[in-house]
Amino acid sequence: MTQISLARQSKITEEMNIVAIDEGIDPKKIRELISLGHVVIPKNINHHFSPKGIGKGLRTKINANIGTSMGHCDINEELDKLKIAILSGSDSVMDLSTAGDLYSIRKLIIENSNVMVGAVPIYAVFASLVSQNKELFDMTDDYLFDSIEEQCSQGIDYMTVHCGVTMKTYSMCDKSNRIAGIVSRGGALIAAWMHHHKKENPLYEYYDRLLDIAFKYDVTLSLGDGLRPGSIADATDAAQIEELIVLGDLTRRARARGVQVMIEGPGHVPLNQIQANIIIQKRLCDEAPFYVLGPLTTDCAPGYDHITSAIGGAIASAHGADFLCYVTPAEHLCLPTVEDVRLGVIAAKIAAHSGDIAKGIHNSLDRDIKMSQFRKDLDWEGMYKMAIDPELPKKRRQDTEKKVCTMCGKLCAIDIHNKMVK
Amino acid sequence: MTQISLARQSKITEEMNIVAIDEGIDPKKIRELISLGHVVIPKNINHHFSPKGIGKGLRTKINANIGTSMGHCDINEELDKLKIAILSGSDSVMDLSTAGDLYSIRKLIIENSNVMVGAVPIYAVFASLVSQNKELFDMTDDYLFDSIEEQCSQGIDYMTVHCGVTMKTYSMCDKSNRIAGIVSRGGALIAAWMHHHKKENPLYEYYDRLLDIAFKYDVTLSLGDGLRPGSIADATDAAQIEELIVLGDLTRRARARGVQVMIEGPGHVPLNQIQANIIIQKRLCDEAPFYVLGPLTTDCAPGYDHITSAIGGAIASAHGADFLCYVTPAEHLCLPTVEDVRLGVIAAKIAAHSGDIAKGIHNSLDRDIKMSQFRKDLDWEGMYKMAIDPELPKKRRQDTEKKVCTMCGKLCAIDIHNKMVK
Repeated sequence: MTQISLARQSKITEEMNIVAIDEGIDPKKIRELISLGHVVIPKNINHHFSPKGIGKGLRTKINANIGTSMGHCDINEELDKLKIAILSGSDSVMDLSTAGDLYSIRKLIIENSNVMVGAVPIYAVFASLVSQNKELFDMTDDYLFDSIEEQCSQGIDYMTVHCGVTMKTYSMCDKSNRIAGIVSRGGALIAAWMHHHKKENPLYEYYDRLLDIAFKYDVTLSLGDGLRPGSIADATDAAQIEELIVLGDLTRRARARGVQVMIEGPGHVPLNQIQANIIIQKRLCDEAPFYVLGPLTTDCAPGYDHITSAIGGAIASAHGADFLCYVTPAEHLCLPTVEDVRLGVIAAKIAAHSGDIAKGIHNSLDRDIKMSQFRKDLDWEGMYKMAIDPELPKKRRQDTEKKVCTMCGKLCAIDIHNKMVK
Repeated sequence: MTQISLARQSKITEEMNIVAIDEGIDPKKIRELISLGHVVIPKNINHHFSPKGIGKGLRTKINANIGTSMGHCDINEELDKLKIAILSGSDSVMDLSTAGDLYSIRKLIIENSNVMVGAVPIYAVFASLVSQNKELFDMTDDYLFDSIEEQCSQGIDYMTVHCGVTMKTYSMCDKSNRIAGIVSRGGALIAAWMHHHKKENPLYEYYDRLLDIAFKYDVTLSLGDGLRPGSIADATDAAQIEELIVLGDLTRRARARGVQVMIEGPGHVPLNQIQANIIIQKRLCDEAPFYVLGPLTTDCAPGYDHITSAIGGAIASAHGADFLCYVTPAEHLCLPTVEDVRLGVIAAKIAAHSGDIAKGIHNSLDRDIKMSQFRKDLDWEGMYKMAIDPELPKKRRQDTEKKVCTMCGKLCAIDIHNKMVK
């Protein structure tokens, strides 16, 4: 039984209670939101950890992508990334490994993670074909679904599946004047397979087979946006919206089968189109949780895309996005380092928290009020405690024995004002 | 004669022509915007450089604060900050020095700057009193205005003056339930002086004297928000808005006297209140250019406030803010280093450009389209050229002889899709 099917039977599970306590919300309300599909609890029956909820009325959660690549494969480094991501406050990691012993890497990451673990099963499918010197086109339907089931049985809590890349949607993308074409790895791989075989996407055609596997392990589907824009000039085009319409239908089918589902979103989006993207997704997908990748508000800042995505992510969260995939400074350039992972998580946390304050999430302002009170009192230890990263401010402070800082010294506004009102 | 008074006489000055070319806008339109006060060209008659415009319909400009402090005073380091700020693309610097030989430091910065230079004259006033072991309260009206005139005669292009901290507005602030009180250095200093002497703010009481000096050198007034919120919980409160009403009146008086004027804004503002702050400022101050400090969308990220302010700055710019004051990673902790200045400028540029795309500034999307085309072609040299910082992406790229990057390797979406559509 899955969380959504239990919720529909009016059962409040242990997981729902944990989420209720974490969010400060009545467990009955959590159960109701899960039964409606407005909230999901990604937790595989084979992965044992304290879960979190994602969706309407809950704190915005963040995810950190980790995993080996064919250009850089070091499992210990990836485990270090896992560690730093969790330590820095990530609510989730995705294992996107495409090199090395993928089964063992996935096993290690799931075993070592006390946060939800996601995967994009098609990566492992194609990566293993490549490692066997086979072509992408050699994938069969059974090979695909067997690999998905294997990954689910290992304990992944949610999986990105690019079911919305159909003959129709990808032909709309190819016929359009898109600048960047398809930039989703999974989307491009599936589209290439479909193009070669002149066949429909098996993840779409045999969607029920996918639902059966997801139901069995209570793996949450994260319906991927294979046709997401890869340039802000391509954002919110017909192909992207057509895919979203397909994902809306698939959302309803998943819910009917008792499978939890969330929707993935762009990508590269100009600031003034972000709100519209959230409104459209919530409407077309019946309020399914929205998991956005960025979005980046300009294409021109490689090396600093954690900042660009913090801008887009904060706005998305403020308007109702529920789950932010971090972007690291390495995006568009290379596989992220451990330090990139840390910086990506912190930037995403700033975005998520800024959005939570804006959308009025329960108690989200409390931390800022406490921080401001410590600031007013020039209480540095208090400030460190309230900081998203307590270590860096401590390191940066010079003359730590002094009450004021080196920015203003004797002309400290707070000190002057405190003395005045005494 | 000032730019605004010449514009009103239907004269198109050399400065207006330079701005028109820079922005790709008809010089007649620029003249009109200046005559209305919707655009300013901060340029002192004694500072010789190629000026930029700030205001309605123009690209969002950014400013980098530099300057010595009592806790850290090294003029060569400040000149290095000036250099890196300009090199990284800042449109302006403010000399906020409060330690050392302030006259000579200001002279050096103005001489070495080919971008507009701003100052907060009251800092030098109070800093020199402190250096003479005098009290803040020893400031006289003549001492204040003589120092302002001296600074203007040296060639500063615009000056922050906290004229809106009046007996009425600061009493509203003190009586309120503000968490952080007054956090503007200039505002706190002026308020302390007023509190001690039980006298009105001389910058308000003798505003005409200030206008005469500003007119003489065509120094643009930047009406400071001395009562800006220093905690997001304090944002958009009555004291802040009352001060803005005062600044609206002072805007009209400045324009009537032929003095260019812009308005400074918060500060610490929750994401969902930023747009309202811009609308209110534009309405109350008759479309005067808006110069925002951040804003920060959470108080909880010391060490990363360049990211937090990029979020707020991008949204502010998108909704009509014209000029962004950068915030560095050192904010709330210590005087910024040269590297902090560089990171602050880049974050502010990302914010300004994201906002420009959103508000539809002429040609602003072109760069992103070019970047995306280079990305689609896997043309790395082209990408570096379009990057806000071309150096870092080059350094970060591993295996630079390869076409794809270490993130995806053989599973590069762009490469797969390009081959498919060939």
